[in-house]
Amino acid sequence: MRAERGLLARDVVAVSAGPDLFADALVTQGARVTRVDWHPPAMERELAALWRDDVDAANREALARLLAAHQVLIDVRPAIEVIPGMARDLILHAGPPIEWTRMSGPLRGAVVGALLYEGLASTPDEAARLAAAGGVRFEPCHHHAAVGPMAGVTTASMPVFVVENRARGNRAYSTLNEGLGKVLRYGAFAPEVIERLRWFRDILGPALGEAIRRTGGVDVRALIAQALQMGDECHNRNRAASALLIKALAPHLASLDLPPPERARILAFAAGNDHLFLNVGMAACKAAADAAHGLPRSSLVTTMARNGTQFGIRVSGLGDRWFTAEAETPVGLYFAGFGAADANPDIGDSAITETAGIGGFAMGAAPAIVEFVGGTPADALRYTRLMYEITLGENTAYRLPPLDFRGTPTGIDVRLVMQTGILPQINTGIAHREAGIGQIGAGLVKPPRACFESALRALVAERRGG
Amino acid sequence: MRAERGLLARDVVAVSAGPDLFADALVTQGARVTRVDWHPPAMERELAALWRDDVDAANREALARLLAAHQVLIDVRPAIEVIPGMARDLILHAGPPIEWTRMSGPLRGAVVGALLYEGLASTPDEAARLAAAGGVRFEPCHHHAAVGPMAGVTTASMPVFVVENRARGNRAYSTLNEGLGKVLRYGAFAPEVIERLRWFRDILGPALGEAIRRTGGVDVRALIAQALQMGDECHNRNRAASALLIKALAPHLASLDLPPPERARILAFAAGNDHLFLNVGMAACKAAADAAHGLPRSSLVTTMARNGTQFGIRVSGLGDRWFTAEAETPVGLYFAGFGAADANPDIGDSAITETAGIGGFAMGAAPAIVEFVGGTPADALRYTRLMYEITLGENTAYRLPPLDFRGTPTGIDVRLVMQTGILPQINTGIAHREAGIGQIGAGLVKPPRACFESALRALVAERRGG
Repeated sequence: MRAERGLLARDVVAVSAGPDLFADALVTQGARVTRVDWHPPAMERELAALWRDDVDAANREALARLLAAHQVLIDVRPAIEVIPGMARDLILHAGPPIEWTRMSGPLRGAVVGALLYEGLASTPDEAARLAAAGGVRFEPCHHHAAVGPMAGVTTASMPVFVVENRARGNRAYSTLNEGLGKVLRYGAFAPEVIERLRWFRDILGPALGEAIRRTGGVDVRALIAQALQMGDECHNRNRAASALLIKALAPHLASLDLPPPERARILAFAAGNDHLFLNVGMAACKAAADAAHGLPRSSLVTTMARNGTQFGIRVSGLGDRWFTAEAETPVGLYFAGFGAADANPDIGDSAITETAGIGGFAMGAAPAIVEFVGGTPADALRYTRLMYEITLGENTAYRLPPLDFRGTPTGIDVRLVMQTGILPQINTGIAHREAGIGQIGAGLVKPPRACFESALRALVAERRGG
Repeated sequence: MRAERGLLARDVVAVSAGPDLFADALVTQGARVTRVDWHPPAMERELAALWRDDVDAANREALARLLAAHQVLIDVRPAIEVIPGMARDLILHAGPPIEWTRMSGPLRGAVVGALLYEGLASTPDEAARLAAAGGVRFEPCHHHAAVGPMAGVTTASMPVFVVENRARGNRAYSTLNEGLGKVLRYGAFAPEVIERLRWFRDILGPALGEAIRRTGGVDVRALIAQALQMGDECHNRNRAASALLIKALAPHLASLDLPPPERARILAFAAGNDHLFLNVGMAACKAAADAAHGLPRSSLVTTMARNGTQFGIRVSGLGDRWFTAEAETPVGLYFAGFGAADANPDIGDSAITETAGIGGFAMGAAPAIVEFVGGTPADALRYTRLMYEITLGENTAYRLPPLDFRGTPTGIDVRLVMQTGILPQINTGIAHREAGIGQIGAGLVKPPRACFESALRALVAERRGG
């Protein structure tokens, strides 16, 4: 009894989970209450079926492959030469499969631009008719070991970065980043956009390819690890990573056999694009995620991607099936003159960064990003801390100085998402909903919960079937 | 009475300053005690004489000039062409004035190397004899609008960065950074050291100068502001700033009329030197500090510099007088095979960074630096917070994301240092005490308190005299 009195004489703090009623009652009595955002998990029966040793074992192997990835940038080549299954009449796009009629404005705009660029149509109207009439095929980048930011449109003659995962030998691909302003990935197809893509094809792509080959390969894993200690999270902030990439390639670019103004133009373009590295980083994340894909029973998420209409995820143990739902619209900061009413729903393959444990999951390393996506540096740390709740491990390569060098939360588990009710935190650019306008802001977004619900059901069904 | 009871029923926390006796007594009674590291200020009478409106007014103007500095990197030129008062028989060095007989090992080594490099001696022995016999003159860099890291030795034919403070038109100068390993600034004078300096003079310096002129000037203030949001504090961590500098210059370096391998060598040297930016940043800080110097009555510190034997400070209102004391030895982390017994006392002009509000004062922005200088990321934040106690303002250009974008603590006030007993926090490289060995570690160091005591006395004497 004396011990109890001693206890109560001290400072008492209550922790309240569930309905606010209890917390409110304590507050009115002057008690300090910490409210915990916890709710009983939905789909308890399905979850119970999946907390099993065999799922854990499959996840351990999937996570080990994700963490072991050692990505090296080895080349830039035309897509047709390197991307498996690439064809002249094939247009790769971001996110899950989608047909022309359901495509959003920015994706349609990018398709039109790509058809003009490839010479398959000579006017935007002709391009749109060709696309609508089935004159070209559409497939997700993700079905071809590729990823693309925003619209993600990739066609045969576009030069692509080639990233090799030396741990397992698989490769992944992504286009060259065009910078900001009027660019294909945000659905613009003005003449300047097409002109830039032709310069990529004729000059920039071959020059980068030659420079990269001369380096013997750029260690992308090491570069990302450095950039995370330099204020990048490598999704919406790539300033350090881009500068490090330029630093690695500049000696080789400077000695290429090109006219001096062309060498200067290449390096000026690179220096003027703070997202130069984004596509390289995305290909590196794709190479890691692909290595972790295809392990029976595993509930590890290996894809999160959006086509501007739907959000889709794929799961290691569920083969090539997509689990989709209507994409949400990011909440964030808009450029002057734009607002939420102008925003397209979430779009792009760039959530491959969060899938691999960087991007929104590493925001704690990038406090300055809040000036771009909104919130405070404390929020950025909070997002990272929260993601440990839904991930299977901590990254061994990517460490966060503000968290005493703890590894980034890596490897989203469908079970943990449903058990905790915590959704993955993605940060992203915001596209205008009409074709041709471009980026209008940046912000935060989450996948629809329904993607994880249907994936969870499929994991249970797969057990019963198998 | 009821109010008092209510007060005491709540959580009581004691704050204890001064002798530990009181805090200890409270702790034994189970109270929570926050101990404050405060002591009654030394030299109370002198301080009382200086807490005056005229000193405050002079300090406001000095701080305004320090904060208004807008530094632009405009050129690289041979020292003899640009440094005021430079001469063929003059050797500039770091820190306060010192003669050959009192010089430490690394400073002597650098002098020997410089005499060999300039062709004023043909063997190390001959160089040492020449220096000892008064065959050359020694003066501080600081007397010539220049600064140099570590030994800081600067001679006539060395190329130097030219940084202009556009706010007041004054310029400052610093040599090119040699990278790590065997380098002159740590007292090495092996043939490879001299060879590198000759390549600087003949190729690198002219190439950088031409590239910088073609840019029309690199905004160093903006570059530092960016780097502080990229994990640098711009004294011992310059990785981001160096990459940003390369990014700015690469387009112009790549189009210079030089043989391709020489262009590649220049950019490879730059890319391989994570301290490439250090000397540029130091010149920028010197340009700001010089602008704030020479205001009668002002107690603002405008120089903190070490020659390897003594630490010296200068104060805005006290003209060209140095206030010196024996330099302390940094405490930090040593490279494998070295320890504290090998360390030279504190050396170099690089504490100009702390003088201008970056370096140790901005460590909160650079948590990863603790892997290099020791401590934890929390310590780094603590050092920055503490420096607000002894500075007159917060930097308007340099903002720290982890502190919610608060400006760095800027403008050390001799009065505040003596009033609080808190000494400026410097982080620094550690040189081997013998000539020719080089860097053996990095760590933290403070100026001797005696420098500030004598400056405080001089400020009081100046009042009485005037």
